[in-house]
Amino acid sequence: MNFSSKLIEEAVQAFASLPGIGKKTALRLVLHLMSQEEEMTDTFAEAIVKMRKNIKSCTCCHNLSDELLCNICQDTRRSKQVLCIVEGIRDIMAIEDTAQFKGTYHVLGGVISPIEGIGPDDLNINSLLERIEKKEIKEVIMAISPTIEGDTTIFFLSKKLEAYDVKISTIARGVSFGGELEYADELTLGRSIVARIPYRGKD
Amino acid sequence: MNFSSKLIEEAVQAFASLPGIGKKTALRLVLHLMSQEEEMTDTFAEAIVKMRKNIKSCTCCHNLSDELLCNICQDTRRSKQVLCIVEGIRDIMAIEDTAQFKGTYHVLGGVISPIEGIGPDDLNINSLLERIEKKEIKEVIMAISPTIEGDTTIFFLSKKLEAYDVKISTIARGVSFGGELEYADELTLGRSIVARIPYRGKD
Repeated sequence: MNFSSKLIEEAVQAFASLPGIGKKTALRLVLHLMSQEEEMTDTFAEAIVKMRKNIKSCTCCHNLSDELLCNICQDTRRSKQVLCIVEGIRDIMAIEDTAQFKGTYHVLGGVISPIEGIGPDDLNINSLLERIEKKEIKEVIMAISPTIEGDTTIFFLSKKLEAYDVKISTIARGVSFGGELEYADELTLGRSIVARIPYRGKD
Repeated sequence: MNFSSKLIEEAVQAFASLPGIGKKTALRLVLHLMSQEEEMTDTFAEAIVKMRKNIKSCTCCHNLSDELLCNICQDTRRSKQVLCIVEGIRDIMAIEDTAQFKGTYHVLGGVISPIEGIGPDDLNINSLLERIEKKEIKEVIMAISPTIEGDTTIFFLSKKLEAYDVKISTIARGVSFGGELEYADELTLGRSIVARIPYRGKD
Protein backbone atom coordinates (compact mmCIF):
# COMPACT_ATOMS: atom_id res chain seq x y z
CA MET A 1 0.00 0.00 0.00
CA ASN A 2 1.31 3.43 -0.94
CA PHE A 3 0.87 6.09 1.72
CA SER A 4 1.22 9.71 0.79
CA SER A 5 1.92 10.51 4.42
CA LYS A 6 4.37 9.08 6.93
CA LEU A 7 1.99 10.01 9.76
CA ILE A 8 -0.84 8.01 8.21
CA GLU A 9 1.49 5.11 7.55
CA GLU A 10 2.57 5.00 11.20
CA ALA A 11 -1.01 5.21 12.45
CA VAL A 12 -2.08 2.45 10.06
CA GLN A 13 0.82 0.29 11.22
CA ALA A 14 -0.17 0.91 14.84
CA PHE A 15 -3.70 -0.34 14.20
CA ALA A 16 -2.51 -3.20 12.01
CA SER A 17 -0.32 -4.46 14.87
CA LEU A 18 -3.51 -5.38 16.74
CA PRO A 19 -4.78 -8.94 16.28
CA GLY A 20 -7.39 -9.46 13.57
CA ILE A 21 -6.83 -6.03 12.01
CA GLY A 22 -5.25 -5.97 8.58
CA LYS A 23 -3.85 -2.99 6.70
CA LYS A 24 -7.10 -2.22 4.89
CA THR A 25 -9.16 -2.23 8.08
CA ALA A 26 -6.45 -0.21 9.81
CA LEU A 27 -6.64 2.40 7.05
CA ARG A 28 -10.41 2.55 7.39
CA LEU A 29 -10.07 3.16 11.13
CA VAL A 30 -7.44 5.86 10.60
CA LEU A 31 -9.60 7.62 8.00
CA HIS A 32 -12.53 7.37 10.40
CA LEU A 33 -10.49 9.14 13.08
CA MET A 34 -9.55 11.76 10.47
CA SER A 35 -13.22 12.40 9.75
CA GLN A 36 -13.98 12.97 13.44
CA GLU A 37 -13.07 15.83 15.74
CA GLU A 38 -9.48 15.86 17.01
CA GLU A 39 -10.74 15.46 20.59
CA MET A 40 -12.24 12.11 19.73
CA THR A 41 -8.79 10.74 18.89
CA ASP A 42 -7.38 12.28 22.07
CA THR A 43 -10.12 10.71 24.19
CA PHE A 44 -9.57 7.37 22.49
CA ALA A 45 -5.81 7.42 23.05
CA GLU A 46 -6.21 8.62 26.61
CA ALA A 47 -8.66 5.83 27.47
CA ILE A 48 -6.30 3.07 26.37
CA VAL A 49 -3.14 4.63 27.84
CA LYS A 50 -4.89 5.24 31.17
CA MET A 51 -6.24 1.71 31.15
CA ARG A 52 -2.88 0.12 30.42
CA LYS A 53 -1.12 2.25 33.00
CA ASN A 54 -3.51 1.97 35.92
CA ILE A 55 -5.01 -1.48 35.57
CA LYS A 56 -4.12 -3.87 38.35
CA SER A 57 -4.49 -7.55 38.95
CA CYS A 58 -6.81 -8.23 41.90
CA THR A 59 -4.59 -9.44 44.74
CA CYS A 60 -7.21 -12.01 45.72
CA CYS A 61 -8.63 -13.53 42.51
CA HIS A 62 -6.26 -12.20 39.78
CA ASN A 63 -9.15 -10.62 37.91
CA LEU A 64 -8.30 -7.32 36.21
CA SER A 65 -9.19 -4.48 38.53
CA ASP A 66 -8.96 -0.73 39.07
CA GLU A 67 -8.01 -1.26 42.71
CA LEU A 68 -6.09 -3.80 44.77
CA LEU A 69 -9.28 -5.83 45.17
CA CYS A 70 -11.65 -6.21 42.22
CA ASN A 71 -15.28 -5.23 42.67
CA ILE A 72 -16.39 -8.88 42.74
CA CYS A 73 -14.05 -9.64 45.67
CA GLN A 74 -15.14 -6.40 47.34
CA ASP A 75 -18.84 -7.17 46.98
CA THR A 76 -20.11 -8.18 50.43
CA ARG A 77 -23.32 -9.61 48.98
CA ARG A 78 -21.37 -12.34 47.19
CA SER A 79 -20.62 -15.63 48.88
CA LYS A 80 -16.96 -16.08 49.78
CA GLN A 81 -17.64 -19.76 50.46
CA VAL A 82 -18.20 -20.71 46.83
CA LEU A 83 -15.22 -20.31 44.53
CA CYS A 84 -15.39 -20.61 40.76
CA ILE A 85 -12.07 -21.43 39.10
CA VAL A 86 -11.71 -20.06 35.57
CA GLU A 87 -8.95 -19.87 32.98
CA GLY A 88 -9.13 -16.17 32.17
CA ILE A 89 -10.96 -12.96 32.85
CA ARG A 90 -13.09 -13.36 29.76
CA ASP A 91 -14.63 -16.42 31.41
CA ILE A 92 -15.56 -14.31 34.42
CA MET A 93 -17.35 -11.88 32.13
CA ALA A 94 -19.18 -14.72 30.38
CA ILE A 95 -20.32 -16.24 33.68
CA GLU A 96 -21.27 -12.83 35.10
CA ASP A 97 -23.39 -12.23 32.02
CA THR A 98 -25.48 -15.29 32.90
CA ALA A 99 -26.27 -13.78 36.34
CA GLN A 100 -26.42 -17.35 37.71
CA PHE A 101 -23.40 -17.26 40.00
CA LYS A 102 -23.16 -15.29 43.22
CA GLY A 103 -19.87 -16.57 44.61
CA THR A 104 -16.32 -15.38 43.93
CA TYR A 105 -13.75 -16.31 41.31
CA HIS A 106 -10.16 -17.39 40.95
CA VAL A 107 -8.35 -16.78 37.65
CA LEU A 108 -5.78 -19.46 36.81
CA GLY A 109 -4.32 -17.55 33.90
CA GLY A 110 -4.47 -20.54 31.55
CA VAL A 111 -4.52 -24.32 31.64
CA ILE A 112 -1.75 -26.89 31.99
CA SER A 113 -0.44 -27.52 28.49
CA PRO A 114 2.84 -29.38 28.06
CA ILE A 115 2.77 -28.66 24.31
CA GLU A 116 2.76 -24.91 24.92
CA GLY A 117 5.17 -25.32 27.82
CA ILE A 118 2.66 -24.23 30.46
CA GLY A 119 3.12 -26.14 33.70
CA PRO A 120 1.33 -25.86 37.06
CA ASP A 121 3.93 -23.33 38.25
CA ASP A 122 2.94 -20.92 35.50
CA LEU A 123 -0.63 -20.77 36.77
CA ASN A 124 -2.09 -19.03 39.83
CA ILE A 125 -2.36 -22.32 41.74
CA ASN A 126 -0.34 -21.43 44.85
CA SER A 127 -2.49 -18.39 45.54
CA LEU A 128 -5.55 -20.60 45.04
CA LEU A 129 -4.33 -23.07 47.66
CA GLU A 130 -3.54 -20.18 50.01
CA ARG A 131 -7.06 -18.85 49.62
CA ILE A 132 -8.54 -22.27 50.32
CA GLU A 133 -6.31 -22.74 53.34
CA LYS A 134 -6.98 -19.30 54.80
CA LYS A 135 -10.60 -18.69 54.08
CA GLU A 136 -13.76 -20.61 54.70
CA ILE A 137 -14.22 -21.94 51.21
CA LYS A 138 -16.72 -24.80 51.15
CA GLU A 139 -17.23 -25.40 47.46
CA VAL A 140 -15.04 -25.13 44.40
CA ILE A 141 -16.58 -25.07 40.91
CA MET A 142 -14.19 -25.76 38.05
CA ALA A 143 -15.44 -23.71 35.09
CA ILE A 144 -12.64 -24.80 32.80
CA SER A 145 -12.84 -25.51 29.06
CA PRO A 146 -13.81 -29.12 28.20
CA THR A 147 -10.56 -29.84 26.35
CA ILE A 148 -7.74 -32.30 27.00
CA GLU A 149 -5.70 -29.52 28.63
CA GLY A 150 -8.70 -28.36 30.63
CA ASP A 151 -9.41 -31.88 31.86
CA THR A 152 -5.75 -32.32 32.82
CA THR A 153 -5.89 -29.09 34.80
CA ILE A 154 -9.11 -30.14 36.54
CA PHE A 155 -7.52 -33.50 37.44
CA PHE A 156 -4.38 -31.81 38.75
CA LEU A 157 -6.35 -29.33 40.85
CA SER A 158 -8.69 -31.97 42.23
CA LYS A 159 -5.65 -33.96 43.41
CA LYS A 160 -4.23 -30.83 45.07
CA LEU A 161 -7.57 -30.08 46.72
CA GLU A 162 -7.98 -33.59 48.15
CA ALA A 163 -6.14 -32.40 51.25
CA TYR A 164 -8.84 -29.84 52.00
CA ASP A 165 -12.42 -30.28 53.07
CA VAL A 166 -14.05 -28.73 50.00
CA LYS A 167 -16.78 -29.94 47.70
CA ILE A 168 -15.52 -30.00 44.11
CA SER A 169 -17.67 -29.83 40.99
CA THR A 170 -17.22 -29.04 37.32
CA ILE A 171 -19.72 -27.17 35.20
CA ALA A 172 -22.19 -29.48 33.45
CA ARG A 173 -21.28 -30.75 30.01
CA GLY A 174 -23.75 -31.95 27.46
CA VAL A 175 -25.75 -30.82 24.45
CA SER A 176 -26.29 -27.07 24.18
CA PHE A 177 -29.62 -25.63 25.16
CA GLY A 178 -31.70 -25.15 22.02
CA GLY A 179 -29.29 -27.32 20.00
CA GLU A 180 -30.46 -30.09 17.71
CA LEU A 181 -29.26 -33.56 18.73
CA GLU A 182 -28.36 -34.57 15.19
CA TYR A 183 -25.89 -31.69 14.92
CA ALA A 184 -24.18 -32.31 18.28
CA ASP A 185 -20.69 -33.77 17.91
CA GLU A 186 -20.26 -37.47 18.73
CA LEU A 187 -18.10 -36.95 21.81
CA THR A 188 -20.49 -34.47 23.42
CA LEU A 189 -23.54 -36.57 22.59
CA GLY A 190 -21.85 -39.78 23.76
CA ARG A 191 -20.78 -38.21 27.04
CA SER A 192 -24.19 -36.65 27.58
CA ILE A 193 -25.74 -40.15 27.41
CA VAL A 194 -23.17 -41.64 29.78
CA ALA A 195 -23.60 -38.72 32.20
CA ARG A 196 -27.41 -38.66 31.95
CA ILE A 197 -29.31 -36.79 34.64
CA PRO A 198 -32.36 -38.25 36.49
CA TYR A 199 -35.52 -36.57 35.20
CA ARG A 200 -37.12 -34.38 37.81
CA GLY A 201 -40.04 -33.10 35.80
CA LYS A 202 -40.23 -29.40 35.08
CA ASP A 203 -37.57 -27.36 36.89
CA MET B 1 -21.25 -7.26 29.12
CA ASN B 2 -20.13 -7.04 32.74
CA PHE B 3 -16.79 -5.33 33.27
CA SER B 4 -15.00 -5.74 36.55
CA SER B 5 -13.06 -2.59 35.84
CA LYS B 6 -14.13 0.90 34.82
CA LEU B 7 -10.79 1.39 33.04
CA ILE B 8 -11.34 -1.67 30.89
CA GLU B 9 -14.90 -0.62 30.18
CA GLU B 10 -13.76 2.79 28.97
CA ALA B 11 -11.02 1.32 26.79
CA VAL B 12 -13.48 -1.19 25.31
CA GLN B 13 -15.94 1.60 24.61
CA ALA B 14 -13.19 3.61 22.94
CA PHE B 15 -12.38 0.76 20.57
CA ALA B 16 -16.06 -0.09 20.05
CA SER B 17 -16.70 3.49 18.89
CA LEU B 18 -14.63 2.75 15.78
CA PRO B 19 -16.53 1.52 12.72
CA GLY B 20 -16.79 -2.25 12.30
CA ILE B 21 -15.55 -3.01 15.81
CA GLY B 22 -18.08 -4.50 18.19
CA LYS B 23 -17.81 -4.91 21.95
CA LYS B 24 -16.38 -8.44 21.74
CA THR B 25 -13.67 -7.46 19.27
CA ALA B 26 -12.95 -4.34 21.32
CA LEU B 27 -12.46 -6.48 24.42
CA ARG B 28 -10.11 -8.78 22.52
CA LEU B 29 -8.05 -5.77 21.43
CA VAL B 30 -7.93 -4.37 24.96
CA LEU B 31 -6.86 -7.73 26.39
CA HIS B 32 -4.22 -7.92 23.67
CA LEU B 33 -2.83 -4.54 24.76
CA MET B 34 -2.88 -5.82 28.35
CA SER B 35 -0.79 -8.81 27.36
CA GLN B 36 1.84 -6.58 25.73
CA GLU B 37 4.39 -4.25 27.26
CA GLU B 38 3.06 -0.91 28.45
CA GLU B 39 5.26 0.90 25.91
CA MET B 40 3.42 -0.77 23.07
CA THR B 41 0.18 0.92 24.14
CA ASP B 42 2.00 4.24 24.52
CA THR B 43 3.51 3.96 21.04
CA PHE B 44 0.11 3.04 19.62
CA ALA B 45 -1.65 5.96 21.26
CA GLU B 46 1.13 8.36 20.32
CA ALA B 47 1.03 7.34 16.65
CA ILE B 48 -2.66 8.08 16.28
CA VAL B 49 -2.64 11.29 18.31
CA LYS B 50 0.38 12.60 16.38
CA MET B 51 -1.27 11.65 13.10
CA ARG B 52 -4.56 13.34 13.95
CA LYS B 53 -2.81 16.46 15.20
CA ASN B 54 -0.25 17.01 12.48
CA ILE B 55 -1.90 15.71 9.36
CA LYS B 56 -2.66 18.35 6.75
CA SER B 57 -4.65 18.53 3.57
CA CYS B 58 -2.38 19.15 0.57
CA THR B 59 -3.02 22.72 -0.53
CA CYS B 60 -2.82 21.69 -4.16
CA CYS B 61 -4.65 18.35 -4.53
CA HIS B 62 -6.41 17.92 -1.12
CA ASN B 63 -4.65 14.62 -0.52
CA LEU B 64 -3.72 13.96 3.11
CA SER B 65 -0.18 15.10 3.69
CA ASP B 66 2.48 15.71 6.34
CA GLU B 67 3.40 19.02 4.75
CA LEU B 68 1.65 21.81 2.86
CA LEU B 69 2.23 19.95 -0.39
CA CYS B 70 1.81 16.16 -0.50
CA ASN B 71 4.69 14.08 -1.79
CA ILE B 72 2.87 13.34 -5.04
CA CYS B 73 2.50 17.06 -5.80
CA GLN B 74 6.13 17.61 -4.72
CA ASP B 75 7.45 14.85 -6.95
CA THR B 76 9.17 16.54 -9.90
CA ARG B 77 9.25 13.28 -11.89
CA ARG B 78 5.46 13.23 -12.09
CA SER B 79 3.65 14.96 -14.93
CA LYS B 80 1.77 18.06 -13.86
CA GLN B 81 0.01 18.09 -17.22
CA VAL B 82 -2.12 15.02 -16.55
CA LEU B 83 -4.61 15.33 -13.71
CA CYS B 84 -6.56 12.42 -12.28
CA ILE B 85 -9.76 13.41 -10.47
CA VAL B 86 -10.77 11.06 -7.66
CA GLU B 87 -13.43 11.00 -4.96
CA GLY B 88 -11.23 10.30 -1.96
CA ILE B 89 -7.70 9.62 -0.82
CA ARG B 90 -8.31 5.87 -0.76
CA ASP B 91 -8.76 6.04 -4.52
CA ILE B 92 -5.32 7.68 -4.81
CA MET B 93 -3.81 4.78 -2.86
CA ALA B 94 -5.58 2.24 -5.04
CA ILE B 95 -4.37 3.91 -8.24
CA GLU B 96 -0.85 4.35 -6.86
CA ASP B 97 -0.78 0.63 -6.04
CA THR B 98 -1.29 -0.13 -9.73
CA ALA B 99 1.87 1.90 -10.59
CA GLN B 100 0.20 2.77 -13.92
CA PHE B 101 -0.29 6.50 -13.43
CA LYS B 102 2.49 9.06 -13.33
CA GLY B 103 0.50 12.29 -13.27
CA THR B 104 -0.98 14.19 -10.35
CA TYR B 105 -4.32 13.97 -8.57
CA HIS B 106 -7.18 16.11 -7.41
CA VAL B 107 -9.39 14.87 -4.56
CA LEU B 108 -13.02 15.96 -4.88
CA GLY B 109 -13.95 14.81 -1.40
CA GLY B 110 -17.05 12.95 -2.58
CA VAL B 111 -19.53 12.94 -5.43
CA ILE B 112 -22.61 15.02 -6.13
CA SER B 113 -25.47 13.30 -4.33
CA PRO B 114 -28.74 15.21 -3.86
CA ILE B 115 -30.07 12.39 -1.61
CA GLU B 116 -27.22 12.87 0.83
CA GLY B 117 -27.38 16.63 0.39
CA ILE B 118 -23.99 16.90 -1.28
CA GLY B 119 -23.96 19.58 -3.94
CA PRO B 120 -21.13 20.86 -6.18
CA ASP B 121 -20.27 23.51 -3.58
CA ASP B 122 -19.42 20.83 -1.02
CA LEU B 123 -16.74 19.37 -3.28
CA ASN B 124 -13.27 20.68 -4.13
CA ILE B 125 -14.40 21.88 -7.55
CA ASN B 126 -13.40 25.54 -7.33
CA SER B 127 -9.81 24.63 -6.49
CA LEU B 128 -9.87 22.19 -9.40
CA LEU B 129 -10.95 24.92 -11.82
CA GLU B 130 -8.28 27.22 -10.38
CA ARG B 131 -5.63 24.56 -10.95
CA ILE B 132 -6.80 24.06 -14.52
CA GLU B 133 -6.87 27.79 -15.15
CA LYS B 134 -3.47 28.47 -13.62
CA LYS B 135 -1.39 25.52 -14.63
CA GLU B 136 -0.63 23.83 -17.87
CA ILE B 137 -3.00 20.88 -17.49
CA LYS B 138 -3.58 19.16 -20.80
CA GLU B 139 -5.50 16.08 -19.80
CA VAL B 140 -8.05 15.27 -17.11
CA ILE B 141 -8.86 11.66 -16.22
CA MET B 142 -12.04 11.15 -14.23
CA ALA B 143 -11.44 8.14 -11.98
CA ILE B 144 -14.85 8.31 -10.35
CA SER B 145 -17.06 5.41 -9.24
CA PRO B 146 -19.38 4.07 -11.97
CA THR B 147 -22.56 4.89 -10.04
CA ILE B 148 -25.46 7.24 -10.75
CA GLU B 149 -23.88 9.85 -8.45
CA GLY B 150 -20.46 9.31 -10.02
CA ASP B 151 -21.86 9.72 -13.52
CA THR B 152 -23.70 12.88 -12.47
CA THR B 153 -20.45 14.27 -11.10
CA ILE B 154 -18.56 13.40 -14.27
CA PHE B 155 -21.25 15.09 -16.36
CA PHE B 156 -21.20 18.19 -14.16
CA LEU B 157 -17.40 18.43 -14.28
CA SER B 158 -17.24 17.86 -18.02
CA LYS B 159 -19.67 20.76 -18.53
CA LYS B 160 -17.52 22.98 -16.29
CA LEU B 161 -14.36 21.96 -18.15
CA GLU B 162 -15.82 22.69 -21.59
CA ALA B 163 -14.52 26.25 -21.23
CA TYR B 164 -10.91 25.02 -21.02
CA ASP B 165 -8.72 23.39 -23.61
CA VAL B 166 -8.27 20.05 -21.87
CA LYS B 167 -8.72 16.50 -23.04
CA ILE B 168 -11.21 14.68 -20.81
CA SER B 169 -11.44 10.92 -20.32
CA THR B 170 -12.96 8.53 -17.82
CA ILE B 171 -11.37 5.29 -16.69
CA ALA B 172 -12.44 2.30 -18.79
CA ARG B 173 -15.49 0.35 -17.69
CA GLY B 174 -16.19 -3.24 -18.58
CA VAL B 175 -15.79 -6.79 -17.36
CA SER B 176 -13.09 -7.29 -14.75
CA PHE B 177 -9.77 -8.80 -15.78
CA GLY B 178 -9.84 -12.52 -14.98
CA GLY B 179 -13.62 -12.42 -14.47
CA GLU B 180 -15.98 -14.94 -16.02
CA LEU B 181 -18.49 -13.41 -18.42
CA GLU B 182 -21.40 -15.45 -17.07
CA TYR B 183 -20.93 -13.94 -13.62
CA ALA B 184 -20.68 -10.32 -14.77
CA ASP B 185 -23.77 -8.27 -13.95
CA GLU B 186 -26.12 -7.43 -16.83
CA LEU B 187 -25.47 -3.71 -16.80
CA THR B 188 -21.69 -4.08 -16.91
CA LEU B 189 -21.83 -6.77 -19.58
CA GLY B 190 -24.39 -4.82 -21.65
CA ARG B 191 -22.32 -1.64 -21.50
CA SER B 192 -19.13 -3.52 -22.29
CA ILE B 193 -20.72 -4.74 -25.53
CA VAL B 194 -22.01 -1.28 -26.47
CA ALA B 195 -18.61 0.27 -25.67
CA ARG B 196 -16.60 -2.48 -27.38
CA ILE B 197 -12.97 -1.73 -28.22
CA PRO B 198 -11.38 -2.45 -31.64
CA TYR B 199 -9.15 -5.49 -31.34
CA ARG B 200 -5.50 -4.57 -31.75
CA GLY B 201 -4.03 -8.02 -31.35
CA LYS B 202 -1.73 -8.68 -28.43
CA ASP B 203 -0.87 -5.59 -26.39
